[in-house]
Amino acid sequence: MSPDPVAVEEVVAEQVADLCVAAPAEGEKPKKEKKPKPQKEKKEKPAQGGGKELKKETQLGLSTKKADDFSKWYSELVVASELISYYDVSGCYILRPWAFSMWEVVQRWFDDNIKKLGVQNAYFPMFITEDVLNTEKDHVEGFAPEVAWVTRAGNSEMDKPIAIRPTSETVMYPYYAQWIRSHRDLPLRLNQWTNVVRWEFKYPTPFIRSREFLWQEGHTAFATQAEADTEVRQILDFYAGVYQELLAVPVTQGQKSDKEKFAGALYTTTVEAFIPDNGRGVQGATSHCLGQNFSKMFGIEFETEDHGKSHAWQNSWGLTTRSLGVMIMTHGDDKGLVLPPRVAPKQVVIIPIPKSSSAPEQVAAMFEQVKAFKASLESSSVRVETDYRTNYTPGWKYNHWELRGVPIRMELGPKDMDNKTVVLARRDTGAKEFVPWDQVATRVPELLEQIQADMLAKAKARYDACVETVTTWDAFMAALNNKHMALAPWADEEEVEEDVKKRSATADAMGAKTLCIPFEQPPLPEGAVCFASGKPAKNWALWGRSY
Amino acid sequence: MSPDPVAVEEVVAEQVADLCVAAPAEGEKPKKEKKPKPQKEKKEKPAQGGGKELKKETQLGLSTKKADDFSKWYSELVVASELISYYDVSGCYILRPWAFSMWEVVQRWFDDNIKKLGVQNAYFPMFITEDVLNTEKDHVEGFAPEVAWVTRAGNSEMDKPIAIRPTSETVMYPYYAQWIRSHRDLPLRLNQWTNVVRWEFKYPTPFIRSREFLWQEGHTAFATQAEADTEVRQILDFYAGVYQELLAVPVTQGQKSDKEKFAGALYTTTVEAFIPDNGRGVQGATSHCLGQNFSKMFGIEFETEDHGKSHAWQNSWGLTTRSLGVMIMTHGDDKGLVLPPRVAPKQVVIIPIPKSSSAPEQVAAMFEQVKAFKASLESSSVRVETDYRTNYTPGWKYNHWELRGVPIRMELGPKDMDNKTVVLARRDTGAKEFVPWDQVATRVPELLEQIQADMLAKAKARYDACVETVTTWDAFMAALNNKHMALAPWADEEEVEEDVKKRSATADAMGAKTLCIPFEQPPLPEGAVCFASGKPAKNWALWGRSY
Repeated sequence: MSPDPVAVEEVVAEQVADLCVAAPAEGEKPKKEKKPKPQKEKKEKPAQGGGKELKKETQLGLSTKKADDFSKWYSELVVASELISYYDVSGCYILRPWAFSMWEVVQRWFDDNIKKLGVQNAYFPMFITEDVLNTEKDHVEGFAPEVAWVTRAGNSEMDKPIAIRPTSETVMYPYYAQWIRSHRDLPLRLNQWTNVVRWEFKYPTPFIRSREFLWQEGHTAFATQAEADTEVRQILDFYAGVYQELLAVPVTQGQKSDKEKFAGALYTTTVEAFIPDNGRGVQGATSHCLGQNFSKMFGIEFETEDHGKSHAWQNSWGLTTRSLGVMIMTHGDDKGLVLPPRVAPKQVVIIPIPKSSSAPEQVAAMFEQVKAFKASLESSSVRVETDYRTNYTPGWKYNHWELRGVPIRMELGPKDMDNKTVVLARRDTGAKEFVPWDQVATRVPELLEQIQADMLAKAKARYDACVETVTTWDAFMAALNNKHMALAPWADEEEVEEDVKKRSATADAMGAKTLCIPFEQPPLPEGAVCFASGKPAKNWALWGRSY
Repeated sequence: MSPDPVAVEEVVAEQVADLCVAAPAEGEKPKKEKKPKPQKEKKEKPAQGGGKELKKETQLGLSTKKADDFSKWYSELVVASELISYYDVSGCYILRPWAFSMWEVVQRWFDDNIKKLGVQNAYFPMFITEDVLNTEKDHVEGFAPEVAWVTRAGNSEMDKPIAIRPTSETVMYPYYAQWIRSHRDLPLRLNQWTNVVRWEFKYPTPFIRSREFLWQEGHTAFATQAEADTEVRQILDFYAGVYQELLAVPVTQGQKSDKEKFAGALYTTTVEAFIPDNGRGVQGATSHCLGQNFSKMFGIEFETEDHGKSHAWQNSWGLTTRSLGVMIMTHGDDKGLVLPPRVAPKQVVIIPIPKSSSAPEQVAAMFEQVKAFKASLESSSVRVETDYRTNYTPGWKYNHWELRGVPIRMELGPKDMDNKTVVLARRDTGAKEFVPWDQVATRVPELLEQIQADMLAKAKARYDACVETVTTWDAFMAALNNKHMALAPWADEEEVEEDVKKRSATADAMGAKTLCIPFEQPPLPEGAVCFASGKPAKNWALWGRSY
């Protein structure tokens, strides 16, 4: 399942240090957060009246620029924008409503799609006995170092320790063996939305790598490989849909190399994202065909139509809250989050801007107009926030909602009241436009679609610019050192990949690995050789340094 | 939060033994389930053709009658109907899709409602440090004996053990103290849908009492008690809505006595259900006003509008998967589940009944007609199942879907094809009716509504018949021994409740306690005295033996 524990393990600690976020050690009391953020402002006394007697406002926004120190920028951003709070158990984070509601959008979309395929949700316990966990040795090996063990209940030591699921293959499959007897019981397609625990000892990063995280895990069983193969790709398409259609993050779909596939899988497919700012690939989500490996191990056998016996073909696939982290890294800027409209908790923030000299009835009329816009837009399913606060200046509010990434700001000042217009300001480009009141209800949804499309296009252009087609070792190293991915012909052999990883590591950068073998392959020239080994090339692989 | 750990602790083990379900001990391999159930049939070879050459079918349904051995009936039913599988960690159960999809209906309904109130979802980690867990001593005392502790990660012993949440007051409130600074930060209303762990050492019962269970927990903070009070009751109304409107289970709304309230709460409100078959009350869900107790302990203080300081008023409220267990117990019969249409995963099952002598084109026409009904009903949001299987007799299929509780069975045989009618059979009453094809699309939704209403009315009549108004000790004991609740005037004193509990315990039945002090109070006659103590009565309380 994703994130792949094997792949993760291979990331050398000091090499991820540039994304390190200092987290308090276990047992420490939760600390007041240190980053500048709106709540600090809230300590100030609210001003009375229409903004005239405002106190000096504390600096809003981020102290670090994305280009200057990406890792610091990210760790500041997730806290300042109220997505995350650090928690007093190291490597665990609080997902605040601003973050969680985006996860809910992802959940709803994906859940609706898999249900149309016939997948059903269920819930399996999070505890696993040691014996069951150890059933599939290869599989457990990848997870064993990071399994959390419950050994005590109340004041009683347990007879045998019980593991908390790092993934649920071994939790579920003994029961699949009970439930599946006949070809008529197939396909069996279950999914669950849960928390899982992988007690990693490496540097945690909010969303990207945490000790407890949220995900969905699908586990399906089919009578034939053909059906399993088909589903693997349907699910991968949904994952690509989450990234591209919802999060506006471009990904490459492909197959993992043998070295990088899920332990125990027949093959693993993946959607691979890329963070240009630090030149790192990120595994977005994975859809595995497990073949008959687990079904043989767990005895998932069924009677075929012609009264024979066969082991089921199985898949498993997972998408985690990491997806939100990739989105934040992709779109965020020096002012804060930039959220794609489809997942933004609020798509429009309406800010009335009365003058301090405005008469009360003028202010009231303006506020009424804001309410009318809100009602009108909400009736078209636009998610609207309004900010009537009188103790902050318009400028402070602009900064505040920019930090939080709201796609459109709608301003309504005295002149707009006179002209019966509003100003729409785009978060992604900063572009402003005047819109007559009677066009607001049509223009806003249109603009939201436009922003969504533009954000993906912009990110796609950046992504594409980071893919260098290379055929030689020198060009390969140049691409990596340029913080790019390399698309290179290679021999598709595990030992070559091992070799590349070692040789491409430098004093201050980790070695590269295959991100995937893209499904869309350029033609392989006749006689093409592997960029690294000189052996005959079998295909083009996408390589990069990665999370 | 519900279920109240204190209340639960007081239930004497042997007194709940009548609901005991033998669960495998930790560390055992999962066993093949023993109860008769459809999957056993699946081992038989499918018959060829139209049902003529059917093998002898294994007995379907339940071996135990509800009236004969309620506890055995229940434990058979939840497995045979494919709601639950027993799991190899004692006290944990697998929620299979048939059960989980009902939980999803409950979730969606409740979640939509609380969001309309302005509650937002979030996710807090499930791990708690020992120090934080111990912050509120009274509160933790109720939970300490059943807290599960993680002490090891991989092969490393942790420096300090980490608890798994039994509830999240202590997880969340340190952060509420950070986030809430000003009256402008209030109300803060968060909810999460999670798993929690209470490692009880008493007999587990599927849905009703398990070591890991699913729930929602709401945690809110307000500037004033009035706002907190209002929300407590709004949420309780939603809980009553879940039980009455969705699950067709009647409940009494009321306040818990001081003895029965949540540890640390100012007061606890509850919806109380009742199982007539074993004469047990069940706490359905609870909505607590925590007052300022936790906010003082965790330092949740804010600046008021007039620049003073005040501690927040807090509520917490929870609803668990127990609600499904109460529904199953309430409606189930000797044939299996009887599901209220609003939560039923499938509301209608259509069964075509070709004759073995039917020509292929006649069978094809019949199947086409079934498909047409399915499409038509689904377009009206009716959840439809179809059963085309040829290896089972119609009778077997009827039993199968009755066991699973589907509210309406639609039969379509050769005569129905000739007459252009279908048969609709109600699961709850067994009543059948013929319906012309052109009325199916209107009659089915109407009948579903009727079944929903009738199920609630029937359960309500049974519930009401179980409430005996008593004013003397003898009448009180007679009511209890008649497996009834007693509505009795009492002194509303903790020592009286303690005394009643002791005196009402018999050789084979636990003592009674207050279920609640109902909000709807009959007039208290002048000079009324407590049925138990003879002191002046303060109110009417609903008493009973309970889970």
